[in-house]
Amino acid sequence: MKLKEGDMVLLFSADGTSFLTVISRKKLSTHLGELNLEDALEKSYGDFIETHKGEKLFLIKPPVGEFIRRLKRQTQIIFPKEAGYILMYLDIFPGAKVIECGTGSGSLTTVLAHFVGENGKVFSYERREEFASLAEENLKKWGIRERVEIKLKDIEDGFEEEGVDAVFLDLPNPWDYLKQVKKALLPGRHLGAICPTFNQLEKLVESLKKEGFIWIRAMELLKRDIRPSPGKIRPEDNMIAHTGFLVFATLINEK
Amino acid sequence: MKLKEGDMVLLFSADGTSFLTVISRKKLSTHLGELNLEDALEKSYGDFIETHKGEKLFLIKPPVGEFIRRLKRQTQIIFPKEAGYILMYLDIFPGAKVIECGTGSGSLTTVLAHFVGENGKVFSYERREEFASLAEENLKKWGIRERVEIKLKDIEDGFEEEGVDAVFLDLPNPWDYLKQVKKALLPGRHLGAICPTFNQLEKLVESLKKEGFIWIRAMELLKRDIRPSPGKIRPEDNMIAHTGFLVFATLINEK
Amino acid sequence: MKLKEGDMVLLFSADGTSFLTVISRKKLSTHLGELNLEDALEKSYGDFIETHKGEKLFLIKPPVGEFIRRLKRQTQIIFPKEAGYILMYLDIFPGAKVIECGTGSGSLTTVLAHFVGENGKVFSYERREEFASLAEENLKKWGIRERVEIKLKDIEDGFEEEGVDAVFLDLPNPWDYLKQVKKALLPGRHLGAICPTFNQLEKLVESLKKEGFIWIRAMELLKRDIRPSPGKIRPEDNMIAHTGFLVFATLINEK
Amino acid sequence: MKLKEGDMVLLFSADGTSFLTVISRKKLSTHLGELNLEDALEKSYGDFIETHKGEKLFLIKPPVGEFIRRLKRQTQIIFPKEAGYILMYLDIFPGAKVIECGTGSGSLTTVLAHFVGENGKVFSYERREEFASLAEENLKKWGIRERVEIKLKDIEDGFEEEGVDAVFLDLPNPWDYLKQVKKALLPGRHLGAICPTFNQLEKLVESLKKEGFIWIRAMELLKRDIRPSPGKIRPEDNMIAHTGFLVFATLINEK
Repeated sequence: MKLKEGDMVLLFSADGTSFLTVISRKKLSTHLGELNLEDALEKSYGDFIETHKGEKLFLIKPPVGEFIRRLKRQTQIIFPKEAGYILMYLDIFPGAKVIECGTGSGSLTTVLAHFVGENGKVFSYERREEFASLAEENLKKWGIRERVEIKLKDIEDGFEEEGVDAVFLDLPNPWDYLKQVKKALLPGRHLGAICPTFNQLEKLVESLKKEGFIWIRAMELLKRDIRPSPGKIRPEDNMIAHTGFLVFATLINEK
Repeated sequence: MKLKEGDMVLLFSADGTSFLTVISRKKLSTHLGELNLEDALEKSYGDFIETHKGEKLFLIKPPVGEFIRRLKRQTQIIFPKEAGYILMYLDIFPGAKVIECGTGSGSLTTVLAHFVGENGKVFSYERREEFASLAEENLKKWGIRERVEIKLKDIEDGFEEEGVDAVFLDLPNPWDYLKQVKKALLPGRHLGAICPTFNQLEKLVESLKKEGFIWIRAMELLKRDIRPSPGKIRPEDNMIAHTGFLVFATLINEK
Repeated sequence: MKLKEGDMVLLFSADGTSFLTVISRKKLSTHLGELNLEDALEKSYGDFIETHKGEKLFLIKPPVGEFIRRLKRQTQIIFPKEAGYILMYLDIFPGAKVIECGTGSGSLTTVLAHFVGENGKVFSYERREEFASLAEENLKKWGIRERVEIKLKDIEDGFEEEGVDAVFLDLPNPWDYLKQVKKALLPGRHLGAICPTFNQLEKLVESLKKEGFIWIRAMELLKRDIRPSPGKIRPEDNMIAHTGFLVFATLINEK
Repeated sequence: MKLKEGDMVLLFSADGTSFLTVISRKKLSTHLGELNLEDALEKSYGDFIETHKGEKLFLIKPPVGEFIRRLKRQTQIIFPKEAGYILMYLDIFPGAKVIECGTGSGSLTTVLAHFVGENGKVFSYERREEFASLAEENLKKWGIRERVEIKLKDIEDGFEEEGVDAVFLDLPNPWDYLKQVKKALLPGRHLGAICPTFNQLEKLVESLKKEGFIWIRAMELLKRDIRPSPGKIRPEDNMIAHTGFLVFATLINEK
């Protein structure tokens, strides 16, 4: 299948560098020479195009993890390792209805919308207009804008949805919104949150207990890259040592 | 919505213990007393049932991560942290066609089938009949048996599919099957594998390079549980320090 | 040099098992058969003795790290990885005078006494008599009892020493004793502490700032064992994920 | 005790920056203003001196760990976490005779010489003159030059010492020198090595087995810094994810 305008592509060169772009009729200046993106319209994923210097750039179909890792951002984002784990423990499935707050740059929003599919829906709350706009732009690039309702409002007064399958909070003060979560989330289902500090983790856990949530657990995920150089395999020198602590808890029926 | 026979439930008691089961008309003996699973038929997720001693057990909707973590198994399984990351980097989406080999106990099979949804398909190859049967049983429990074609055969002669969106290899010798992968996988798409040892990682990387794959990367994921006890928040004493190294690579069009 | 009664030895068998003991005229029952420890008196480190079944046990000179790891204990102990790091950052040297509190089972006490040497001194405070006795027994085994003054008393009223080169606190509430530390420690020198929880770490850091300490830092050390099996090199399955957070700070001259 | 020319000092400013220097009659230009090091001659550790702008710099007695971490270097160095662990497992003690090869910039050399004390000796082999000179300079700064014999020679022909208490190899090919180690090291004592890659670790372990060493173990140490900010305690964003794998083994008496 030929690539068309608007398709996302990860351009990957023999020297190991790569960058994400959207297929268009533009020209790109790269460190390997000038590139005519139009050339890609005759091609399929897996093919290559060439710069004016004859440097090959392979057209890779970007996985969603790589898309969010390179997301245009104005905020700290949720990284692939956490996003993947959230999919596993927040009970996400094709067709699910999920609330997320805040939207931020749209990293987790994209992942959730990607996996709930066409029949699912993500309700994403964000107070700041510039973040909502950026997230919208990012969702459009990934082609799933219509699966997300971005709501430019404070959640102090509650969410506008009821009976959702999962809720995720990425806020400085998630403990302040547990009553709102309890109105929106189906009983027996799961709330997730990410907290950069131990103090936030602790305060959230305390509030979750007070509000009657059960199965409260917290963890952190560390990713360690291994240098894939046969004959000298070794972990990479540096790693991101901290992104955030994940917290999960389950709502029970209080009636 | 009331629970019905066949629904999976995570029974969670106030003492912190929990176990997975399928709603049926059976009785269960637990350390908290005898339990009549039939009682759950009048209930919904989030409600509780009681043992004959009056001990409450909450009916939690299990997330897929917890289901596979507690999977009935005869093999080493792929754990939620890796399964989540695979979703992010193997380009899995609702509707995707994915090859996996081997099936093992069906842990990753379940996750893939869960997320490719009703319109997707997982082609899962397994040589050993007892593993295929166990995986089938596990997939039935999770209610997604029909999304998976389990193929009881050796992949030496190749996969029976062409043009799939992703391939994952969980084999002792993934390097022996790269030619087969190249026939089945769409160009520009991604192969993933898990290797318990550095030697396997190295051999796989060498073969991937030889076979012309690009964007070859390897990593490991570590999960560290945090004890959610306000006033004495701390990492748990022990952790699983090694499950396997993940390797990803991208197929290019060689024509 | 021949081994003599009282020498510590790590007995190491071909099957990989090992145990620490003191050379004596006793007999030992082991899973490899009965062992006459007297046989070692004719031997040197590096030689072996045999059980009545002919199983060889090599006589290894135990390094101090292994001695403390296998210490007879009634308390949580400080492990080699932390003890080694403390040596590097607490300004320990042969001849140093060091205060430690509490003694516990004597793990860090042993390491400090080992490295301050014959001209150094460790002043180790412990409130509980049974711990002090056990630590004394452990120090005797390692042959450095005379380098340590164990003081069976509460440090609320202060330390009895002044002008020491370093202080280490292994207490549930180190923040309560910073004024005492300031009287005992030489200015420009370093205080260390170990805290199992984040809450303790935080409280200690707050108090250190209030008391005018500078260069306050905290860290944790993780040790990951690698299975040394050529052809299948890999990290071990399990690890100790948490022993404690180390905190270091430097005293300044307030006059 | 007043500071004197030649004393090492860690200058620590209120803004958290710090640097190591040797007390002299020089002037220093710092980002906080000009500093007259001579001012320190009237002072003791724990006091402060001031820049011409009135910025205070506290005079800290540097612990050996911090000295090596900031070592003037032309090579990769052994870091404090590994150096501390080596002290614990290589059977280092005041008075010990230790062989090290290669010297490199003298990081581990300094630590070993620091802890073997005045009655101990470090025999440090280095083939490259520029490294030997740099190490010598670093050892002089730390004031322990006389405890080290730097030997500018290849160890292919063996070490010049016999009966040493411990040997440490920091070489690209430690496996090539095990026969030499066996002639120099006392039986029942320990050899240590550091290997950056898994391939080196594997090759070393294979050779150690072939040469009859016992108690062969390998591990890595990870240090994770915690940001000591009360109210927002969290791990630091980045960490050094790999320095090297440590390998230890014990020599037996083959006669």
